Amino acid sequence: MAQILKSSAADFEAAFKDLLSAKRETTTDVRDVVTDILRDVQDRGDDALYDLTTKFDRFDARTKGLAITDVEVEAACAQVDAETMAALEVAAARIRAFHAKQIPDDLDYTDDVGVRLGQTWQAVEAAGLYVPGGTASYPSSVLMNAIPASVAGVDRVVMVVPTPDDVLNPLVLAAAKLAGVTEIYRIGGAQAVAALAYGTETIAPVDKIVGPGNAFVAEAKRQVFGKVGIDTIAGPSEILVVADNKNDPRWIAADLLSQAEHDTAAQSILITDDETYARQVMAAVEDHLASLERRDIALASWTDYGAIVIVDKLLDAVPLVNRLAPEHLELAMDDADAFAGQVRNAGAIFLGRYTPEAIGDYVAGPNHVLPTARAARFSSGLSVYDFMKRTTFVGCTEASLQAIGPSAVRLAEEEGLGAHALSVAIRLKGFNK
Amino acid sequence: MAQILKSSAADFEAAFKDLLSAKRETTTDVRDVVTDILRDVQDRGDDALYDLTTKFDRFDARTKGLAITDVEVEAACAQVDAETMAALEVAAARIRAFHAKQIPDDLDYTDDVGVRLGQTWQAVEAAGLYVPGGTASYPSSVLMNAIPASVAGVDRVVMVVPTPDDVLNPLVLAAAKLAGVTEIYRIGGAQAVAALAYGTETIAPVDKIVGPGNAFVAEAKRQVFGKVGIDTIAGPSEILVVADNKNDPRWIAADLLSQAEHDTAAQSILITDDETYARQVMAAVEDHLASLERRDIALASWTDYGAIVIVDKLLDAVPLVNRLAPEHLELAMDDADAFAGQVRNAGAIFLGRYTPEAIGDYVAGPNHVLPTARAARFSSGLSVYDFMKRTTFVGCTEASLQAIGPSAVRLAEEEGLGAHALSVAIRLKGFNK
Repeated sequence: MAQILKSSAADFEAAFKDLLSAKRETTTDVRDVVTDILRDVQDRGDDALYDLTTKFDRFDARTKGLAITDVEVEAACAQVDAETMAALEVAAARIRAFHAKQIPDDLDYTDDVGVRLGQTWQAVEAAGLYVPGGTASYPSSVLMNAIPASVAGVDRVVMVVPTPDDVLNPLVLAAAKLAGVTEIYRIGGAQAVAALAYGTETIAPVDKIVGPGNAFVAEAKRQVFGKVGIDTIAGPSEILVVADNKNDPRWIAADLLSQAEHDTAAQSILITDDETYARQVMAAVEDHLASLERRDIALASWTDYGAIVIVDKLLDAVPLVNRLAPEHLELAMDDADAFAGQVRNAGAIFLGRYTPEAIGDYVAGPNHVLPTARAARFSSGLSVYDFMKRTTFVGCTEASLQAIGPSAVRLAEEEGLGAHALSVAIRLKGFNK
Repeated sequence: MAQILKSSAADFEAAFKDLLSAKRETTTDVRDVVTDILRDVQDRGDDALYDLTTKFDRFDARTKGLAITDVEVEAACAQVDAETMAALEVAAARIRAFHAKQIPDDLDYTDDVGVRLGQTWQAVEAAGLYVPGGTASYPSSVLMNAIPASVAGVDRVVMVVPTPDDVLNPLVLAAAKLAGVTEIYRIGGAQAVAALAYGTETIAPVDKIVGPGNAFVAEAKRQVFGKVGIDTIAGPSEILVVADNKNDPRWIAADLLSQAEHDTAAQSILITDDETYARQVMAAVEDHLASLERRDIALASWTDYGAIVIVDKLLDAVPLVNRLAPEHLELAMDDADAFAGQVRNAGAIFLGRYTPEAIGDYVAGPNHVLPTARAARFSSGLSVYDFMKRTTFVGCTEASLQAIGPSAVRLAEEEGLGAHALSVAIRLKGFNK
């Protein structure tokens, strides 16, 4: 079972620091293996993909073809029952509606000395979306990664998904269709990232690669960064619930388990102001565990990384929350707004007693791809902005260049950049002067 | 001298592809050296910084102290002449004014089924700014990197700058003061990046690291990515000028040289619709070169990487521009707006005959830290957004959870995530039911 920490205890700061610095990922050094795979795909293109897919996914993509065709997608959609398809459609529509509100406005103005200034936002032309295979192949992830790209206006939304032993969840293809994916390839691992970054005979290269994956995928993304854009490197999932004792303990217990069941390296933390209530939640966790399909995973996560922190009053939790910078923050209390107003670092906040984190995983609308491992200190969930880029612009007239040019000339001269100074000064003198 | 390509030539596509794929950076494998330095700073903190600074910068930082004090900053400011200080102040004020317009609005609304949704933007708490030392230690870069952080509302804006042989340009410190830098340390290289990412006894860690540097600095940023946020990896500078024959050729020649003088690996390209005019610009480049202080650098860049492309009409340049995705795009023509409206990939655009790119390096207002090496396909110049992060939020009521909860339960069950389904379903049943 999870550990209990009391903020009033003498050793609390040390114990909390341990919680902050707990390494939940097994980091194996896969750099050289990934470097070799990237080079192989650059050198041999499709042939490398065929060979690596035979080796890692145990089927012959040379015969099968790398692309998953529209016919296959339609056949998969036909296998999905109506109720599930309806739920997927609710999710897709709500995710699309929220992300549409993120589209930023352009800027275009002329300042007081007559210089025109501004910036325009445009979508990247092609985005690659990595979808894990096997049991971690979640249709909700396909929606969450592809819809922002589609809403941003990306022309090519290219999905790669490994199909180990040539098996793929039909729901994943149904989600891809709903989300606006335009191309799908049955490849995975570092080789899929390489194909997206460098291109092969069959697969045209993309400009940006997003989506979760194992250590090889993460390292491949790190190595191709610069050649293409990437999203942040995702770690194991985590939830921090701040709850008073007026919540049904079984609800809060279910929320903690909904993270724990993801992965043995996931982390669930509860902060509450009532130790008796904390023990009720703990008991409810045990109750739920008994009937949970993914009991072994959830139990391991809860035992190894779960924690309950008892504070004197709930607002004492604010600085702890900001230090933990949680991926998911649930505020199950009377005035969740007042608490949220003091939170600086969190990926996503779930307000009030009727907002379990899982609602955000599927149908709320905001993205469920969120910064893990304290990365909410400096990064944000996936969004439309990840698939757009800005171009700034400046326009000087002859008169406005006279107003600001001399300062530029001075600074260029101070920096020893003579041609910089010349390019401004020669215009200050006038045309053909 | 630069090569001339004609878009009407049979071999144009091949020649243009060569231009696109020209590797202008010498990539040495510095991975292992950097890994060792990062580990050394993690293990030994300040002691590692002292030893590495003695080794690489040839002075004793143990005696001198790692921090550059306010007294040193004031002394530096006193050394700057009034006219230069005034120019620096013009630049700082204009950069601040432009970046203030980037501060994004929060979002908070309730949708048609009663779910509250939104996102809030907040500044990162601490940002690290790498400033190169020696001749590449530019005060304008300090302004461009630090002001967006200051405008965003970052609490700690921490600058690191190597001072080889214990020498530092006083203008750099004056710029740091104007830009709102709050801490300065006299360290550089991979060790400075390590200190910012992991912290030492003297230097508290930051959340995000930005700023240009050599291959060691770039690799260090790549390796600490994830632990902290980083900006994009900067390559050699580049300009693409699209000009008609009504520009004074000496103006355009100066613009091409203003990039070429940065670095022998810089690249300057002119696209024009008049071959005679192209030759006039080429002659003007030679004229200017004769009197240029950084002649050798500019000549090497222009000879090795410079190019002039002749097209039939200027609008034919649009697809070439988008494929080049230039860092700087100068549009010296009658209707620059019409051309700019068709540009998808560019870091920054300079509109019209009176807007030399150098005006953007210093005083225009938009950032001069821009994506190089075709990265404008997927990334943007440095901005206030780089120092902020978003937190999304969701708030369901009992009623609105009833509206969207069942779809979430369905999808969670399909994904085999029982606790996810439970956490929603248990609330749909009602409190204490």
